[in-house]
Amino acid sequence: MTDIPTFAIPPTFLGVERTDPSAAICIAGIPYDLGTSNRPGARFGPAAIRQASRMLVDGDHPANWGDPAKFDLADIGDFRTAHGDILGSLAKIEAQAAPLTHLVALGGDHTVTLGLLRALATRRGPLALVHFDAHVDTWPDSFGLVWGHGSPFYHAIEEGLIDPHRTVQIGIRSPMHKAVHDWTVGKGVTIIFAEEVHEAGPSAAAERIREVIGDDAAAYLTFDVDALDPAFAPGTGTPEVGGLATWQTRAILRRLAGLDFVGMDVVEVSPPYDVSEITALAAATIAWDYIALLAPRG
Amino acid sequence: MTDIPTFAIPPTFLGVERTDPSAAICIAGIPYDLGTSNRPGARFGPAAIRQASRMLVDGDHPANWGDPAKFDLADIGDFRTAHGDILGSLAKIEAQAAPLTHLVALGGDHTVTLGLLRALATRRGPLALVHFDAHVDTWPDSFGLVWGHGSPFYHAIEEGLIDPHRTVQIGIRSPMHKAVHDWTVGKGVTIIFAEEVHEAGPSAAAERIREVIGDDAAAYLTFDVDALDPAFAPGTGTPEVGGLATWQTRAILRRLAGLDFVGMDVVEVSPPYDVSEITALAAATIAWDYIALLAPRG
Amino acid sequence: MTDIPTFAIPPTFLGVERTDPSAAICIAGIPYDLGTSNRPGARFGPAAIRQASRMLVDGDHPANWGDPAKFDLADIGDFRTAHGDILGSLAKIEAQAAPLTHLVALGGDHTVTLGLLRALATRRGPLALVHFDAHVDTWPDSFGLVWGHGSPFYHAIEEGLIDPHRTVQIGIRSPMHKAVHDWTVGKGVTIIFAEEVHEAGPSAAAERIREVIGDDAAAYLTFDVDALDPAFAPGTGTPEVGGLATWQTRAILRRLAGLDFVGMDVVEVSPPYDVSEITALAAATIAWDYIALLAPRG
Amino acid sequence: MTDIPTFAIPPTFLGVERTDPSAAICIAGIPYDLGTSNRPGARFGPAAIRQASRMLVDGDHPANWGDPAKFDLADIGDFRTAHGDILGSLAKIEAQAAPLTHLVALGGDHTVTLGLLRALATRRGPLALVHFDAHVDTWPDSFGLVWGHGSPFYHAIEEGLIDPHRTVQIGIRSPMHKAVHDWTVGKGVTIIFAEEVHEAGPSAAAERIREVIGDDAAAYLTFDVDALDPAFAPGTGTPEVGGLATWQTRAILRRLAGLDFVGMDVVEVSPPYDVSEITALAAATIAWDYIALLAPRG
Amino acid sequence: MTDIPTFAIPPTFLGVERTDPSAAICIAGIPYDLGTSNRPGARFGPAAIRQASRMLVDGDHPANWGDPAKFDLADIGDFRTAHGDILGSLAKIEAQAAPLTHLVALGGDHTVTLGLLRALATRRGPLALVHFDAHVDTWPDSFGLVWGHGSPFYHAIEEGLIDPHRTVQIGIRSPMHKAVHDWTVGKGVTIIFAEEVHEAGPSAAAERIREVIGDDAAAYLTFDVDALDPAFAPGTGTPEVGGLATWQTRAILRRLAGLDFVGMDVVEVSPPYDVSEITALAAATIAWDYIALLAPRG
Amino acid sequence: MTDIPTFAIPPTFLGVERTDPSAAICIAGIPYDLGTSNRPGARFGPAAIRQASRMLVDGDHPANWGDPAKFDLADIGDFRTAHGDILGSLAKIEAQAAPLTHLVALGGDHTVTLGLLRALATRRGPLALVHFDAHVDTWPDSFGLVWGHGSPFYHAIEEGLIDPHRTVQIGIRSPMHKAVHDWTVGKGVTIIFAEEVHEAGPSAAAERIREVIGDDAAAYLTFDVDALDPAFAPGTGTPEVGGLATWQTRAILRRLAGLDFVGMDVVEVSPPYDVSEITALAAATIAWDYIALLAPRG
Repeated sequence: MTDIPTFAIPPTFLGVERTDPSAAICIAGIPYDLGTSNRPGARFGPAAIRQASRMLVDGDHPANWGDPAKFDLADIGDFRTAHGDILGSLAKIEAQAAPLTHLVALGGDHTVTLGLLRALATRRGPLALVHFDAHVDTWPDSFGLVWGHGSPFYHAIEEGLIDPHRTVQIGIRSPMHKAVHDWTVGKGVTIIFAEEVHEAGPSAAAERIREVIGDDAAAYLTFDVDALDPAFAPGTGTPEVGGLATWQTRAILRRLAGLDFVGMDVVEVSPPYDVSEITALAAATIAWDYIALLAPRG
Repeated sequence: MTDIPTFAIPPTFLGVERTDPSAAICIAGIPYDLGTSNRPGARFGPAAIRQASRMLVDGDHPANWGDPAKFDLADIGDFRTAHGDILGSLAKIEAQAAPLTHLVALGGDHTVTLGLLRALATRRGPLALVHFDAHVDTWPDSFGLVWGHGSPFYHAIEEGLIDPHRTVQIGIRSPMHKAVHDWTVGKGVTIIFAEEVHEAGPSAAAERIREVIGDDAAAYLTFDVDALDPAFAPGTGTPEVGGLATWQTRAILRRLAGLDFVGMDVVEVSPPYDVSEITALAAATIAWDYIALLAPRG
Repeated sequence: MTDIPTFAIPPTFLGVERTDPSAAICIAGIPYDLGTSNRPGARFGPAAIRQASRMLVDGDHPANWGDPAKFDLADIGDFRTAHGDILGSLAKIEAQAAPLTHLVALGGDHTVTLGLLRALATRRGPLALVHFDAHVDTWPDSFGLVWGHGSPFYHAIEEGLIDPHRTVQIGIRSPMHKAVHDWTVGKGVTIIFAEEVHEAGPSAAAERIREVIGDDAAAYLTFDVDALDPAFAPGTGTPEVGGLATWQTRAILRRLAGLDFVGMDVVEVSPPYDVSEITALAAATIAWDYIALLAPRG
Repeated sequence: MTDIPTFAIPPTFLGVERTDPSAAICIAGIPYDLGTSNRPGARFGPAAIRQASRMLVDGDHPANWGDPAKFDLADIGDFRTAHGDILGSLAKIEAQAAPLTHLVALGGDHTVTLGLLRALATRRGPLALVHFDAHVDTWPDSFGLVWGHGSPFYHAIEEGLIDPHRTVQIGIRSPMHKAVHDWTVGKGVTIIFAEEVHEAGPSAAAERIREVIGDDAAAYLTFDVDALDPAFAPGTGTPEVGGLATWQTRAILRRLAGLDFVGMDVVEVSPPYDVSEITALAAATIAWDYIALLAPRG
Repeated sequence: MTDIPTFAIPPTFLGVERTDPSAAICIAGIPYDLGTSNRPGARFGPAAIRQASRMLVDGDHPANWGDPAKFDLADIGDFRTAHGDILGSLAKIEAQAAPLTHLVALGGDHTVTLGLLRALATRRGPLALVHFDAHVDTWPDSFGLVWGHGSPFYHAIEEGLIDPHRTVQIGIRSPMHKAVHDWTVGKGVTIIFAEEVHEAGPSAAAERIREVIGDDAAAYLTFDVDALDPAFAPGTGTPEVGGLATWQTRAILRRLAGLDFVGMDVVEVSPPYDVSEITALAAATIAWDYIALLAPRG
Repeated sequence: MTDIPTFAIPPTFLGVERTDPSAAICIAGIPYDLGTSNRPGARFGPAAIRQASRMLVDGDHPANWGDPAKFDLADIGDFRTAHGDILGSLAKIEAQAAPLTHLVALGGDHTVTLGLLRALATRRGPLALVHFDAHVDTWPDSFGLVWGHGSPFYHAIEEGLIDPHRTVQIGIRSPMHKAVHDWTVGKGVTIIFAEEVHEAGPSAAAERIREVIGDDAAAYLTFDVDALDPAFAPGTGTPEVGGLATWQTRAILRRLAGLDFVGMDVVEVSPPYDVSEITALAAATIAWDYIALLAPRG
């Protein structure tokens, strides 16, 4: 047990002291929000998620008693981006992600996932994708912007970074052009609408995810906090009501133990719209849950 | 697809340009809160709901792919009220609502519904009523005020504007004098307590509503955002904990397709108490859901 | 019916005028937060809960139509504490609680419950305990502090104030040392994790609580608002996502009617982190629900 | 010295225990805001000012070392108003103020001053008036409302309650119809624009006030917090930028020692728009400064 | 006098109904913040400034009794920008500004001024510039971004859009590379540090501005709200403490009557960081003051 | 020039990378607020001040063009305290401060200064003290607490850590027992009330400070942010209206160049009460101003 009270934990993720990128799992922030089409602020997401993660220090995960002492975890700081330059930033993100063994990225808007997938797909081939979101993010463009936060998975499919037949989207409920929906499903993507999670429960959702992904595929987890209802995650740019509760997403995640996860990100935390750190804490907890999934048992 | 980003949508409801009251569906705001007995601010509701509605632009409704291009929708601005004068305001509201074909009103406190029902009942006879609320609003008076926001449905029943046997209230949970409850039920009103929605689910609630209302009755929808739990709708004047989630109310509404709705209002959004627009967005989404229910398919 | 509008109710709990400690049920605030290990502010909890309780005035409880006029209720003001002195404060709390017949205490951080249990156990022997919380609060110390808000039930068990075999904790989900968990369970305490409430429902939880407590034991209710999810209770010091909804806790409480409750507290409301009074209102409502459980019927 | 820390002071003004209206100076709140034409919320002003006043307990006033122990001060609670009824409320305010020896009223919107002046003028004849405000409040009506918060001094002059030649308004800067300005000045009122205070300093302003009022006239102080700049008083309904700093108003007030003050009010504190209690504290301090002016020396 | 209360004024600037770009003075919003290097959100500036401007409706300007009825004023809505594209947006801004006679632009970040100056300088030659700001904004680039909000006046000087010898910057106080300062002064720009305004007063500052600008030059006013202290304008992206009070900037502006102003903008209002609309109201008031400067007398 | 935008600066003070305590100037945070008697939260002050300090990166100080590259500055992280233990914390603070050459401490409540002075006085003898504050902080105890934030300078004088004849307090204005005032002045302390700064100006205040301190004495600067008015520093525990503007304190500080400063702290920043980082930025700027005072010129 530490004798540093929660309020004094240093502002790395979980207060970890290691900063060396050769760790088994690296945390990195990506302070970037040029791709946002509504409320900005995700540039401050990494700082807020790290600060909220102090609340998760000094305890085992109650779901699996994973032993944090056996994690080889480093917080390597923030990625550099190209200020005001979308394509330049995507290239920098890809380059910085490429050499890392297993990255847990703290966004940043959802555009950043495209850079991360490019880096990872080079090494691991087309990835299976578990994608929590209120939006399908497969628009060919949003409001004229081709490389914005509404389009990362359009590009990821077009570029062959993910396998759409092993891609599942959970929490979808936004207004959407029918053509975008139909293209997405036509490519083979599985959509689990928020409503289905509410009515069939997280256990059914998890089962369906496992069916789509399969246990043997290299899988990537991307978690847009707007998958959560604005009541649970007000601090985000493109909220949609009717979303998931944090307990539901945690219940789903817990049931994904055993998938071959090779990386994850949690994105779209916008601190200027957060209240009392609840969105940042939700994001930190999701990353913590993910790491616990991977952890050796105590 | 529009190339105006969400953040730049003009501040009419859904950014619509039409302002002509001869449209098939008219949106109007009613900036009025003289009837509030606790926290004021609903006078700013219309502006906040319109601004939040920008988030719903440029997309079809995912539940039914209604084609917004086929809606004949106008935002005719705000109704005039009589500053500081409750009865004068009710008269003005009634007069302005009377000539409109199908009105979607953005409140304002719940008193305004009385004026709207007077206008509509003149034309359509006693209405069936779907009433989401934490409160029955059938008090003969509240704290000495006869025409306040605790009493619109007392008057509506007494004036024969609604048919209590075709009236159903969903989400009720406030402290309440037993005599008020008994009068309401005695008149024939069906009450579905919030607890019942939580325990039996929205599908059962929707079924019961359909039974009470019937498919052939001219039905009015009045949605007090305090039907929602304060977690989902903090920006309101008379919050009560234990309320509905937005997904629940949306799940109920979706199942009311086919009822003969002739008008609706969403009331009691108080922006000074809102956080990150979540209440205003909930209200805008409920109105959008309602319009989608009525819309021709794409 | 009163003609004082909600916004003008005086700032005692439920606006009661009686302040005499000989009442059957006494409300007292305990403005104390020296035991907090993360976000402070619970020192302002009593004032905020009282102010929010105005919203519950002038109405019967809809679950049981308890007649408030038959309650013998007094708000005796705040307990004195020893400024800056943890042990001194615990002693003062115990001393002030001792002579009261039936106390409903408004915290204050969870440390205060230790003082309250000491006062009550002296008179009533080891108590059965219904404990809502995100945390087990049975750490032998937290960050080096033996008498902080992470440890009241460690001491309560060690001091024989509660009977661990008749103790049940509901809503647990925080990071936790496995050793703390095992000690707690080893002592005989029943833990109902938040996840279990979500998945099995409040009715099952209530049944299990009744089994553990039994109808004949003198039972104490301690409600840490962080049992609630941060969406429902952002205004608290040690939030954990994935928590209970207010409707769930109310549904459980309602089903505990008939237990032999001898006192209760609601703690850890931190107003500087609250938004639009929703946490304070949740706490006030829980206390109101509790009092209604005890009330004679109308 | 008290050993109750600031955070635990009870919520009467300055924590005073006396509630008996026969005290030499009585504090009363007036939770009323039916007269507001922009942002509401002043109904919660009395509660917020009292709560903020805790910060002024346990100390002498540093300007004059007045001895609080020698004040005969009571907080008699809130005045009753007629819910939703402007004229009825004015009548009630007047009736409750009439028997009090020396009243310090906590608003409430500025309409309440009309009721207070009616009560006082009956006893003391036309009063001299020191009026801090951003607005002249001498509109014959505002937006069609004759008895709103833009008109109390129009009525006070017309009803002969104040002597316009002994009336001075300080801090004026709002948009204003020239006709309203000219009527006011034509009646004999002295206006000191905010700009003049900024450029000539508070000492010059105080001197001019003393000249207009005179030492022998029975004088009333009415302080609308929007006299202060929104930086110093964001929590108000009708803010205007370019206003006074709190130090300036305090510097003026201090120099008015010796005037024959017979009553005062501080109005237009709207807590939903306040931040971190700064407006409420400003209002409480102004009332405290006023009482210190009257106090016997230690 | 209008009978629409302040809270119901429609959301155009000052509630004006005219939208025709052939008006003598046109208001346009520029919802753009791609150039921000710290806190974003200025994309929502135009909406917030318009909404706050309701507070200035229905009154003459007290400084000069300008008669609003004689203003030929239109609110032409928002300029279109190229989403995610800095250079494209600048080009669009320039193109839309070009045909307008006299534009009052509501920002947006300070980058937009470059587009506006390009449009105006084409027609009016190099302009004299009155520039309120905490920053000189003459950096050749900021953090690698050449076309960001730290550089508009570097480009304006390099492109010959403004005459640096007739350019004066007021309120400067940020950290700054000495080389940037020296380049600016070397070009002929006059800098009045915030400190100088505080110590010598606004009258001296105004006099110096008039000397630099001259009465005969076509002058442009650009007002970055961060010229104001964060106490007066918290809602901005790059705050610097020690800034101007609103009264000071208004006192300066008032003394610039008679200059030959040909356009203005007020920029860098970031509503997510604003509190109680005070920054938006400051910006609206500055634009209103500017328009009053130009207005015919009543 | 850096190409890391302001929003991406790492969360050390000014983003400095050096963490080695042998630097010429060390920054350390002290997350401690056990001594607060009103609003808590200063425990989060160090994190907030560091985060706000990002806004001061990449620029010279405009007052003296100090060259930051020549500063030998390290951020050594936070001091350890004893959780829940006032005296233990004071001892730890002293022990950690003792070996440091020149410390700039970020509080934390004002109690921490006592520990810092003990460490420094051991080495440098009784210190001259420049003390900005709304409160004299020379109470022998506050509300029964001897070692709270109202008493550090009582102890510092009694323990001989400071020389009261070379101590000056600026900004004083709180309620205060006359006996405390008289004891302080009787010991030889010079008090400059806030009012005097407002009326005589910062230049006069600076001159008086220089007279009291003298150029040859080892001087310590302690800056309680509540010296500032709540408009400029809402995020603090014990606000008092009528305080200083940030420009005034900066104008005073700048004129203290040449004093022999041997250490400083800035305390009482309480982030839960801050708005838009303005208090944290004020504190960061004061520390930055202080460091610039000491810096070699570019």
